[in-house]
Amino acid sequence: MKNYEAYFSEHREEHIEQLKDWLRIPSVSALSEHKQDMQQAAGWAVEALKTAGLENVKLHTTNGNPVIYADYLHSPNAPTLLIYGHYDVQPVDPLNLWDSPPFEPEIRGDKIYARGATDDKGQVFLHIKAIEAILKTEQKLPVNIKFCIEGEEEVGSPNLPIFIESNLDLLQCDYVLVSDTSLLEKGKPAICTGLRGLCSMEVKVTTANTDLHSGSFGGGVPNALHAMVSLLSSFHDEQGKVTVEGFYEGTPEMTPELRAEFAKLQHDDDKLAQSLELSSLFGEEEFTFVERIGARPTLELNGVYGGFQGEGSKTVIPREANAKITCRLVGKQDPQDILNKIERHVNQHIQKGAKVEFTPLERAFAFTMDPSLPILQQAADSFEAVYGTRAVFTRDGGSLPIIESMSRILSAPAVLMGFGLPDENLHAPNEHFNLENFDKGLLTITHFLKSLEA
Amino acid sequence: MKNYEAYFSEHREEHIEQLKDWLRIPSVSALSEHKQDMQQAAGWAVEALKTAGLENVKLHTTNGNPVIYADYLHSPNAPTLLIYGHYDVQPVDPLNLWDSPPFEPEIRGDKIYARGATDDKGQVFLHIKAIEAILKTEQKLPVNIKFCIEGEEEVGSPNLPIFIESNLDLLQCDYVLVSDTSLLEKGKPAICTGLRGLCSMEVKVTTANTDLHSGSFGGGVPNALHAMVSLLSSFHDEQGKVTVEGFYEGTPEMTPELRAEFAKLQHDDDKLAQSLELSSLFGEEEFTFVERIGARPTLELNGVYGGFQGEGSKTVIPREANAKITCRLVGKQDPQDILNKIERHVNQHIQKGAKVEFTPLERAFAFTMDPSLPILQQAADSFEAVYGTRAVFTRDGGSLPIIESMSRILSAPAVLMGFGLPDENLHAPNEHFNLENFDKGLLTITHFLKSLEA
Repeated sequence: MKNYEAYFSEHREEHIEQLKDWLRIPSVSALSEHKQDMQQAAGWAVEALKTAGLENVKLHTTNGNPVIYADYLHSPNAPTLLIYGHYDVQPVDPLNLWDSPPFEPEIRGDKIYARGATDDKGQVFLHIKAIEAILKTEQKLPVNIKFCIEGEEEVGSPNLPIFIESNLDLLQCDYVLVSDTSLLEKGKPAICTGLRGLCSMEVKVTTANTDLHSGSFGGGVPNALHAMVSLLSSFHDEQGKVTVEGFYEGTPEMTPELRAEFAKLQHDDDKLAQSLELSSLFGEEEFTFVERIGARPTLELNGVYGGFQGEGSKTVIPREANAKITCRLVGKQDPQDILNKIERHVNQHIQKGAKVEFTPLERAFAFTMDPSLPILQQAADSFEAVYGTRAVFTRDGGSLPIIESMSRILSAPAVLMGFGLPDENLHAPNEHFNLENFDKGLLTITHFLKSLEA
Repeated sequence: MKNYEAYFSEHREEHIEQLKDWLRIPSVSALSEHKQDMQQAAGWAVEALKTAGLENVKLHTTNGNPVIYADYLHSPNAPTLLIYGHYDVQPVDPLNLWDSPPFEPEIRGDKIYARGATDDKGQVFLHIKAIEAILKTEQKLPVNIKFCIEGEEEVGSPNLPIFIESNLDLLQCDYVLVSDTSLLEKGKPAICTGLRGLCSMEVKVTTANTDLHSGSFGGGVPNALHAMVSLLSSFHDEQGKVTVEGFYEGTPEMTPELRAEFAKLQHDDDKLAQSLELSSLFGEEEFTFVERIGARPTLELNGVYGGFQGEGSKTVIPREANAKITCRLVGKQDPQDILNKIERHVNQHIQKGAKVEFTPLERAFAFTMDPSLPILQQAADSFEAVYGTRAVFTRDGGSLPIIESMSRILSAPAVLMGFGLPDENLHAPNEHFNLENFDKGLLTITHFLKSLEA
């Protein structure tokens, strides 16, 4: 790897300038006024892939922003890796909280600041440049490579599953390789082997056809808020366990091996409580914080509202109350099945005299990989070779629905080698990417690809 | 009474024109721009009282709007009645919903439309004119009369209790007489013998020092909304009974006599449910609707809010949730004692990891009169003489804190003879007063005063 260290060191300035060019394009997928920027950002990637030596580089149109495909398939005996990433970025507001303009990339200290620096242009860039380095140095790749870079990840990838289903042969692969997650902390690499699934819903409770005066009617008629808090409080027991019938079906057993894996993270629960100014954490008592987040499902109230919200008091009996709810799912929990179970629970627990409307929203399966898979062990080896510390296998409490979809549709294990850091302000002002991980990321990817040589 | 029928008939047009003059003065106590109008409306009443033949007519200054006092004390063996009313009115917005301008009184059909027509200028006017009629006809009054007309009832009478406490001798009386309530319905007179007390409060629940991402933290930390709905749902059992310890102490027993009184109201619970489009009413199962409203206390959620209220879903764990609560009180329930009990309950039922702030707001005792009191029976007789239907004794679920205060401070039973109708839009656009009750009100008051002759 010595020659690659020299190569990346020699091209460092050039690479950073190239990444800055890409970061300058405000490819905000959520805002339609950036439609042209999406095309431009995709075009930039097409050129970068061609320059790197990739073949069949093409923009595929979808009902939304184009998907970039490219490949290099000249190692018939080696595995095929599909590298997934995205060229779209989050909106930038509140703009006034940025210390430098989000689309004028700036290096301060050992970090590059810009929207998309870590999520995900910076990390996609590492793959393009690692492959370019190998091709320039060795005139061939140790594995077969396909790229699939989309422009709608930040808006929920509405068109990518359809694109994948329609292009199964084109995208066929042995593994999906993704860099869109983060290290555990600076110097501590991690491979994410679990992401929770998700389902979300709205619940509306209504009672009378009008708000009523609490003097003239209080105590004699149903109150939508009473019915709502009674319903919502029925979702959990006192320990925070979800009481919806069948909710935990399909969740994995907490084996001693899994516990040992979580224990390796050495998470300090007291320190977290302190930093959040909480007298204590809260959740299922038989599990630690990282176990709860990594391997247990949740039913979380995200918003509840009804009745008077102004100053002082108003003697009203509200006719309507609303709740926003999301569940994080694990193991084999089926989001639609969970929605059905919650809807049944809601209908069974609604108070006499009140009506309830249940509106399901998003659905995503959980994603889990077995850390003992050789490909994941090889990825951990590569991290160790570059960082001097073996990557730990983590389970993230969040959800990346598209990873689970891709892996499932293509029947290919996904390798989540992230080079971000948890505090790099993705989705927030002052997003940045630590250049230590820029440098080590290039080397780790190069090492990993070479380690897969047939 | 024949001669009084003739008298009022003869002076009807003149009386209505006089009332219109008073109604033209926009004496909205809630809005400081009407400060001058308050003085003018009070001045109008002073002149009317003098014209009627009352003595010692005086505007007493307070820290707010002036209180009007007047008396006529020439029947040493007869009881003294203190007539309470108010010359201030509610604001008029939304103005565009009025069919005629609120301060340009207009007669349409058998109703006079204007802000204050029924609440309370129209009803105070009846007392002034009844007394004027008796004095003009008989040159003396059958009883001793004092007037106390305030200008701040619509803003909670902040200065009247102080005025009363400072003028106990001046206001000393045997009975307080008030016309600020309503008939049961057209043609069915009612005497209100019960008003519920009130206490109100705000509850704020907080958890972490920031909102948290439900993926990264969901299931592992306290959620302010979970703690809030768990707390709020602990206030009631499944039947809607309040579970706060000691909450029902001091509430009156539901005696067969009281039940019989409520039964006389012949309230149709099914019809009410139908008109509110409710599958059923809701409340303590062992009581009927009118019993619940008239003789049972409540703990009512008026508003609850926390977390995300926008469109779609947001995976947030909210750090804060708020609730607005009012209780209606009955019997001897002490509002401060109830606030203390609820605060204790709140502190005992708050979830681990969450903090709670309790802010008490208003406090008012319940008001109850025994319908068997001779003075109330005489009032019912007078209604019967004029309306041909004996007045029923009702208990209203609402609260008129000042009536309870006056009656308590002056140790005088209060007689609530209302001449409004429940659908006369007090506090709403198109307030009006039915002229049938204008005419019958004059006669009923005259009859009542004469019936008290020593």
